[in-house]
Formats: sequence, C-alpha cells, structure tokens
Amino acid sequence: MTRLHVPVALRWSDLDAYQHVNNVEMFRLLEDARITAFWRHPDAADEPWPTAVLDTGPHASSHTLVARQEIEYLRPLGFTRNPVRVEMWIGHLGGASLEVCYEVHAGPARFDRVGPASGQVPYAKAATTIVVVDAITEQPRRITADERAAWEPFVGEALTFRRRR
Amino acid sequence: MTRLHVPVALRWSDLDAYQHVNNVEMFRLLEDARITAFWRHPDAADEPWPTAVLDTGPHASSHTLVARQEIEYLRPLGFTRNPVRVEMWIGHLGGASLEVCYEVHAGPARFDRVGPASGQVPYAKAATTIVVVDAITEQPRRITADERAAWEPFVGEALTFRRRR
Amino acid sequence: MTRLHVPVALRWSDLDAYQHVNNVEMFRLLEDARITAFWRHPDAADEPWPTAVLDTGPHASSHTLVARQEIEYLRPLGFTRNPVRVEMWIGHLGGASLEVCYEVHAGPARFDRVGPASGQVPYAKAATTIVVVDAITEQPRRITADERAAWEPFVGEALTFRRRR
Amino acid sequence: MTRLHVPVALRWSDLDAYQHVNNVEMFRLLEDARITAFWRHPDAADEPWPTAVLDTGPHASSHTLVARQEIEYLRPLGFTRNPVRVEMWIGHLGGASLEVCYEVHAGPARFDRVGPASGQVPYAKAATTIVVVDAITEQPRRITADERAAWEPFVGEALTFRRRR
Repeated sequence: MTRLHVPVALRWSDLDAYQHVNNVEMFRLLEDARITAFWRHPDAADEPWPTAVLDTGPHASSHTLVARQEIEYLRPLGFTRNPVRVEMWIGHLGGASLEVCYEVHAGPARFDRVGPASGQVPYAKAATTIVVVDAITEQPRRITADERAAWEPFVGEALTFRRRR
Repeated sequence: MTRLHVPVALRWSDLDAYQHVNNVEMFRLLEDARITAFWRHPDAADEPWPTAVLDTGPHASSHTLVARQEIEYLRPLGFTRNPVRVEMWIGHLGGASLEVCYEVHAGPARFDRVGPASGQVPYAKAATTIVVVDAITEQPRRITADERAAWEPFVGEALTFRRRR
Repeated sequence: MTRLHVPVALRWSDLDAYQHVNNVEMFRLLEDARITAFWRHPDAADEPWPTAVLDTGPHASSHTLVARQEIEYLRPLGFTRNPVRVEMWIGHLGGASLEVCYEVHAGPARFDRVGPASGQVPYAKAATTIVVVDAITEQPRRITADERAAWEPFVGEALTFRRRR
Repeated sequence: MTRLHVPVALRWSDLDAYQHVNNVEMFRLLEDARITAFWRHPDAADEPWPTAVLDTGPHASSHTLVARQEIEYLRPLGFTRNPVRVEMWIGHLGGASLEVCYEVHAGPARFDRVGPASGQVPYAKAATTIVVVDAITEQPRRITADERAAWEPFVGEALTFRRRR
C-alpha cells in the first residue's frame, strides 16, 4: 500500500510542562498534515499533493467536518528541529465520508511525497473520520468521481487500535 | 451515577475559520476540565474538587500520561461567553490507569460541582485513558488507596461510541 | 479614572516548559479580555459589558484590525485556578482607532465589572492599537457617536513603558 | 548589515475567523524563529545556526526571560504552504540582555541562513527584549564572551516603530 508522507515542523510551543509534545498538540500536527494532503491551495499549484483536490476555506462550495477521532500515543515525542513525518492513508472511503489514518514517525518525509509504510513503531497512530458537506446546506454530499479517483490509490487497511476497551 | 460538572470558559481563539470551536481545541477544553477535576493545586486548597488528589507539575512524585483518546463530535459549538459544562465520570478504574469519560454541554456547571447525567445530546462525547507513572522511573505505578477512594464514587458505565467502524 | 475589570481563566496549556504563562499566551489572555469588553454577543444580552458595542464576527458590518501591540512582563505568572483580573482602559480614542491599555493582576474581577486602578505591580502591562474598518472596503471608518459615548468614560492616561530603548 | 533568515512554516490553525494569521499567533512565529536562531539543540549539531549558542530547556544552566515585546502589523498574512521568512538581527547587545529585531516576509529563507535586509514592506516588524538569567538564582547573568562573539556579527540598527504614540 502506498502512503502519503507529509513533513510537519514542530514548534517549541507544542511542548507542555513535561517537555514532550502535548497530547492535544499531537492532533494539531495531524490536522496540519491532513490539510496539506487533502486541500488544494492556490499558492501550491506548481507542486500539488496527489490527493489535494478539496477546495479550501469558508468560501469553497464544500466544507469538511470532523466527525470522530481516535489516537494511541505509543512513545513520547520530544522537541526536534527536523520535521516529523506523518504517514497517511485512507482506511475507509465511503459515500460522503472518509477515514484518514496516520502514523507519526521521526525523520523527514521523502521528497516524492509518497512511499511505503515504514514498519517502525510510531510516536502515535490515529484516525479521523471526515464528512464532506455542502457549504450552503451543511448536509453531507457525495464524494465526486474526481475526488474518488485521487484518493483511491491511497486506500488501505484501516488502523487497528489495541487499547480500546 | 454521579458526574463531575466542570465549567470551562471558551476563548475566541478556540474558533477556527468556520466560526466553530475547532476539533483540536475541543480536546483542549477536555484537558482543562480533566486537570481541574483530578489535580490538586495549592491555590485551591479551600475549595477542592472531590477528585482532585493527584499532585501537579513536573516536580510531583507521580506524573500522568495520556495513552489514548477518542471523541465523537455531535453538534458544532459556536462561541459563547458562558462557560460550557463538561460532565465527567470514570468509565474504568484499573490498577495503574483510568478511563475518563466526558460529555460537553451548554450551560453552567452546578455550584456544588457534582450532579446527574444531563441526558441531553452533547456537543461532543469523548474518553481519555490516563496512566499514572512514577516521576523518576517513568514506569506505571499502582493507584493508591486514597486515590481509589476519591475516584470510586464517580465510576460509571463507560461511553459507547457509535461511529467506530 | 474608571477601569474595566475582566476576569480571564487560565488554562494549563498556557504554561510553557518553564511552568509560567508563556509570553505569547499572555497576549492571548489580553485578546480574550478585549473581546469580552468590546464585542457585543447575542448570548450575553442580559448582562452587557458597558463597552461592548462592536458587533462581532466576519458577518458584521465592521471589523477591527490590530495595528500594533506592546507589552512589558514585570513578574512571572504561574498557574492558578482563579481567573486573573485584566484591568483595561482606553489610553487614546482617535477618529478611527483606539489604544487599549491593560494591566494583568491576580485575583478576581469585581462583580460590578468596573473599578479603580489597583495600584499594585501587575504581572504585565500592555497596549494594543485597534483600527475599526468597514467590513466590505477594509478601509478605516469613523468611530460612531454611540461607540464614542460607550467608550469615553473609560478614557484615561495612556500607559508609560519603561523598558523602551 | 547581515541578518539571520529563518523559515517558519505556517499552520492552518494560525488563522483566525478572519482568515488571516492571528495577531497573537504572529508572536508565536517570532518565538519559533528566535528559538531556532539562538538555542542549541543536540539534534541539530550537524547544521548549527551561527547564533545558536544558548543551551535549551529547563535543565540548562541559564534561562532566558522575555522582558518586553513590541510589534507593528503592516499587512495581513493569509495562509500559505510556503514557510514565511523571518529576518532577524540584534538591535542592542547589552550586558545581560539583548534586543532581537524581526521582519516577517513572504518567501523561503536562503539556504545559507544569512543574508541582507530584503528592503520590502514586511507583514510585520517586531522586537523582543531578552534577559539571560542564571537558572538557579533567576538573576540576570552577564552575556559570556563566546555568546557575544557569536552574536556581534548580527548587531545592527534597532527597528524604528512608527505607530508609537
């Protein structure tokens, strides 16, 4: 399976009083990776992420809502100047929603932005369920054929969470 | 079952570009409620939360680690000057860990800080698994009898998440 | 001179790795106090701040831009469950702009929301220059008579900053 | 005069409800650039910033305190995937303190990390006064000869702020 490899730079303010990236800020890193991977930006036209086919911002015709999230923190992440590498794939591609899966790893993303699963123990693994909604009605709308074509190469097996009770 | 009712004030910066409390910031509100409810602070000695029996900060003999989190966002939460009411209880009390369950509701917390489940549809429901660790060894340590006595009145049925695949 | 006394609750995440409210987060507290004091919110109609006469949000007919800020940090502020008291007044009321002055103090705000200067050494003192702009043209627009009437009772001597070079 | 050119990646969460980098978050970008430029990190030993001679973290023998800050916002900064370039220099190098000056510009930092002033209108210009303190006594301590040698090449004329009253 092919994954997206997205670099995300840490900030010193991501650390909490215990000198580790705070549990809430880890979701911030995931949000940053997800927006980079899925949203189209005018200023990035010359180097598009292969999956960046959603228009961005409150003025776009569609929005995305985050419906659920789940995370397991496996190792503490200290400050590093090197961006972390967020490996992403799609664990489920439904009619109007998708589940984005993530693993957070040390080390830079590959220059070509896609690659295999690293197979190492990540700092964290997580999943986010996103619903695509019409910006006017706020109702879910079907994922288009173009969106589906861009995303299908990255569909893979959904993450298994071991600490669920 | 008795719940803790913790008020948490919103900040305008909790909103994202869609004018709703951002999905990541929702975890920030839960962190704030959790720390209020479980951590003992010297400056709050005269009005202790019944469950606030963990010492706080990097110099305490024990730390807590967040091992997993899960959330479902049920309704968008806009800005309000009134604090939201985070209802909290303990869904599982283990040997060295506990699962904190939350529902985020509109309206102020009750003055007496505990109350029944509200029974309304919350903005979000969530759970956090916390592990108590020795501050020196960073290894899990057993929950003490005093901690258990403080927390057991708030043990109840764990949340059921409906959007899990 | 009469000041606005606005309570602002700290969050544990305001602390940085040194266990003090981070220098950047101090501006976040000021932003929170300023929005509480100057912006009208539908949900707060029954208990208006005397100066809350600006409509809020991107759909309002006017916006405010922050044009400059200045701060001196006088004492480190550790975590406290009690809200800090931000004392605010207007150091200059111009044609299309105003300078908001702040002192951050320990202890709760007075219930009546206005009071005299406390005269103690604050944790920080700061000033923000705000420009009122038309939401469509993004050009400065004159402060209205109603706004001026609401704000004039709080005009006082502007802060003096001692550490300017 | 030579400046440090530090790239800082934006995050979508830096935007506020007006779709611009929030006035408080601008200080966060400056903090990030300042820490990159002045703090030594073990993991960055192979590619040191020329000025990165302060040890970092609560366990270091010295800390730095932020004593004052000042900023003028000159143009709104929207979201961009490309890092902004924070140009930094030292406007004053005192016995135990220094004033760091900044301009925030579009476009990447030069690969060699130092360069001339760009001469363009920045998004913002700002200054931070930092005091070096002993970590035990919390009292100011003299800047060492090594620190001074690292920083002197970057001493230049302090910023002039035009909107001061």
